[in-house]
Amino acid sequence: MNIKMVLRIIGYILLVEAALMLPGMLISLALHETLALRGFLISLGIIILTAGFLILITIRAKLGRFYAREGLVTTGLSWIIMSMLGCLPFYISGEIPSYVDCVFEMVSGFTTTGSSILTNVEAMSKGLLFWRSFSHWVGGMGVLVFLMAIVSLGGKNHGFTLHILRAESPGPAVGKMVPRMKQTAAILYWIYVGLTLADVFFLLIGGMPVFDAFCTAFGTAGTGGFGVRNDSMAGYSPYLQNVTTVFMLLFSVNFSIYYLLILKKYREAFFDEEFRLFWSIVFIATGLLIWNVRPLYETLGETIRHCAFTVGTLMSTTGFATTDFDQWPAFSKAIILFLMVGGACAGSTGGGMKQVRFLLLWKTLRRNIHKSLHPTEVRSVQVNGRPIDEGILDNTSAYLIAYCLIILFSVAVISLDGFSVETNLSAVLATFNNIGPGLAQVGPTCNFSAYSDLSKVVMIADMLAGRLEIFPILVLISRSTWKRAR
Amino acid sequence: MNIKMVLRIIGYILLVEAALMLPGMLISLALHETLALRGFLISLGIIILTAGFLILITIRAKLGRFYAREGLVTTGLSWIIMSMLGCLPFYISGEIPSYVDCVFEMVSGFTTTGSSILTNVEAMSKGLLFWRSFSHWVGGMGVLVFLMAIVSLGGKNHGFTLHILRAESPGPAVGKMVPRMKQTAAILYWIYVGLTLADVFFLLIGGMPVFDAFCTAFGTAGTGGFGVRNDSMAGYSPYLQNVTTVFMLLFSVNFSIYYLLILKKYREAFFDEEFRLFWSIVFIATGLLIWNVRPLYETLGETIRHCAFTVGTLMSTTGFATTDFDQWPAFSKAIILFLMVGGACAGSTGGGMKQVRFLLLWKTLRRNIHKSLHPTEVRSVQVNGRPIDEGILDNTSAYLIAYCLIILFSVAVISLDGFSVETNLSAVLATFNNIGPGLAQVGPTCNFSAYSDLSKVVMIADMLAGRLEIFPILVLISRSTWKRAR
Repeated sequence: MNIKMVLRIIGYILLVEAALMLPGMLISLALHETLALRGFLISLGIIILTAGFLILITIRAKLGRFYAREGLVTTGLSWIIMSMLGCLPFYISGEIPSYVDCVFEMVSGFTTTGSSILTNVEAMSKGLLFWRSFSHWVGGMGVLVFLMAIVSLGGKNHGFTLHILRAESPGPAVGKMVPRMKQTAAILYWIYVGLTLADVFFLLIGGMPVFDAFCTAFGTAGTGGFGVRNDSMAGYSPYLQNVTTVFMLLFSVNFSIYYLLILKKYREAFFDEEFRLFWSIVFIATGLLIWNVRPLYETLGETIRHCAFTVGTLMSTTGFATTDFDQWPAFSKAIILFLMVGGACAGSTGGGMKQVRFLLLWKTLRRNIHKSLHPTEVRSVQVNGRPIDEGILDNTSAYLIAYCLIILFSVAVISLDGFSVETNLSAVLATFNNIGPGLAQVGPTCNFSAYSDLSKVVMIADMLAGRLEIFPILVLISRSTWKRAR
Repeated sequence: MNIKMVLRIIGYILLVEAALMLPGMLISLALHETLALRGFLISLGIIILTAGFLILITIRAKLGRFYAREGLVTTGLSWIIMSMLGCLPFYISGEIPSYVDCVFEMVSGFTTTGSSILTNVEAMSKGLLFWRSFSHWVGGMGVLVFLMAIVSLGGKNHGFTLHILRAESPGPAVGKMVPRMKQTAAILYWIYVGLTLADVFFLLIGGMPVFDAFCTAFGTAGTGGFGVRNDSMAGYSPYLQNVTTVFMLLFSVNFSIYYLLILKKYREAFFDEEFRLFWSIVFIATGLLIWNVRPLYETLGETIRHCAFTVGTLMSTTGFATTDFDQWPAFSKAIILFLMVGGACAGSTGGGMKQVRFLLLWKTLRRNIHKSLHPTEVRSVQVNGRPIDEGILDNTSAYLIAYCLIILFSVAVISLDGFSVETNLSAVLATFNNIGPGLAQVGPTCNFSAYSDLSKVVMIADMLAGRLEIFPILVLISRSTWKRAR
């Protein structure tokens, strides 16, 4: 394990984090939020000192030997440390009194989950609210990817950037859009920035206050879901809700599709199998929900708006809400749980299992049925006409195994708090898939504050495992990671 | 597809089924249950005529070309037809008025599920009750395996028996105990008969009425769970409950372990990894439940008895009950759901996912983590010190995929009836894993009669898919099964 190299990168990451805190701090300064400002300043001091220390002790480390293992460990560790230090302003300002709650809120932010332990969001200072929403935007694309895009840490060591990107990016395989990974990371960020600004623009046109518009756009772009109002999005106009529906779905699409569009490869973009699966599910699920909840709303237009928003918020794993879907009938709740598992497309900012994994699992299953009928035939699994590497298929199956085990284990532990099966199951699904609200006691009108610290720690781990797609977190607790190489 | 051969075997199976109905019919005859007797006689006529017709039209079929495909289709089809005709006595006698309910009850019997739509078991005639419980015993080991054990249909065609055994037997791989499959099937049946008679013996010693003892032993041996009393096992003495706990667990163990014991290979038996995993979970789960529900019962002895029984009934997927575990706290319910998924050992009469599949999935996951750290190393997955064929690992992963998809799909459809998430999820888990009762509205004191016919059909399919381990049922609805060979 090239531990010095890992620590140095974490040092750089912390410097980036400090820089990202500045906008929130400036807002607190401008609005004379004394306690919040003090929280920011002390936190910045601690973060910069830690970063300096990490960089200093590793300044003479060699650059060589950076493999997949180092990529996974760097990603896992830096997300944990970033969250544990990034939440300090909440704690030091006293606005969230419990440190576990602070970490929960910060991890929920960075992992773009949006589950909150706050009962009254509007009571928080603007500076901290901004940092909370901004963390969605930062976590959505990944702060390591950001670092890769702006600096050249590894020099000519291509493996370095690749392994980091692989570990932090969502989806079973990282497509290189252009031969150099650094450039790929930069292109991704430009698309991200562009779409976010477009969202802000459309929200401002609809009359949303500037502060709300930026925070909402951050929550939408990162598919996070922290709102700045106690009623999430329910109080905004139908136009603003619809704009958000559209952008939540846009941010759920694999960003390489946009790159294809920029290159005018329309055919390739629209015939992408994951793209088509995603939109098919969006339309079918919306249709089923409209049919099922029609009697609950006055007009068909209102029904469509709430159903489309709910499908958007769940499939993109954002977690905003315009209506309390916990009040919907049982069939709708089953659809909601189904959508929670599915999630967005790979290579987007959305969470969940990812549609392409469903596609791969489905095709693996079909191949197996075929094989049990025709044992001698050899067949490859194909997506978009190209055969998929067997290693990726194995990994996808392993992902499903880990996914199921983590859900079973998490539900068992948080059940100790005595809530209902529905609450516990949906709480785990909502945090693990980085969605936000669940059903029953953690439904859209409720929050996660009632859970014990133990349960919160389990869900913190779930959120991290969900965002980083399990392996970087499992690797951290695996013995063979820390064994000396032979 | 060698469809004529398939139909001829189904013809033979139906003759076997007719013979198996005779004991129930004789009981109705002896007790002068006129309506039930009439039901039996007419049903026997229909079954024998159908069997005769199937054998007659295929009498000149060639024996050749019997592959895995034929094995899967034979198994899937014969279980469906057996259930649709085997339930006729319930329907014709008028004791279960709805035909869908009759099929549900029969499938629940043959698949050793034990979920019932009956609200008052004790009102049923003894002859039909006997047939209902006896179907557990028949289905537990598999009627095709039985056929293989007594006749030589395929002559020297070994593949024939092998493919049938593979399709009908639980577990990822069929171990040949002795070189000839026919002999293996016979050994399995002798162990099965011996253990069942031992169970009857111990129940009779405890003062259970003869009729109850046989029916209870059938339910225990097949790990089915149909009782002959409205309160399941709650009204019997603690001794009888404890005997049942022991035998439920004995029938959950891979029968090849007993064969090893007969051969005095004690070491091999006790160091079997699945065997050890199974008993570890039994003891840990019982311990956790005792700790969690201790305040609900008066004495520690009573607590241990109920907890051990519940763990036994769930892990063996039997479904008897001595206490209403739906009243237990949330943590216990989570453990219960966990145990429902796990199930018994492969090669036993129990259902569920099978412990060995957990073992294989867990080891596959660990190998994948290792591989992501050391991409160049090649490692095989080993169980009991022997490397496992990659094909079996692929199949196990495919099994998990199908398992998850079927659960998601089933829960969605039965949610249309409007019951709670807990009810629907546990109903699907209980039927798909062949357990019997679930939680909430399908808890141990309730039944499945409130569901709509559509939901019942879904759960009928789930029970069959669960008992036959998915593939024989999926193959029936797969296009490539019915395509002509090239």
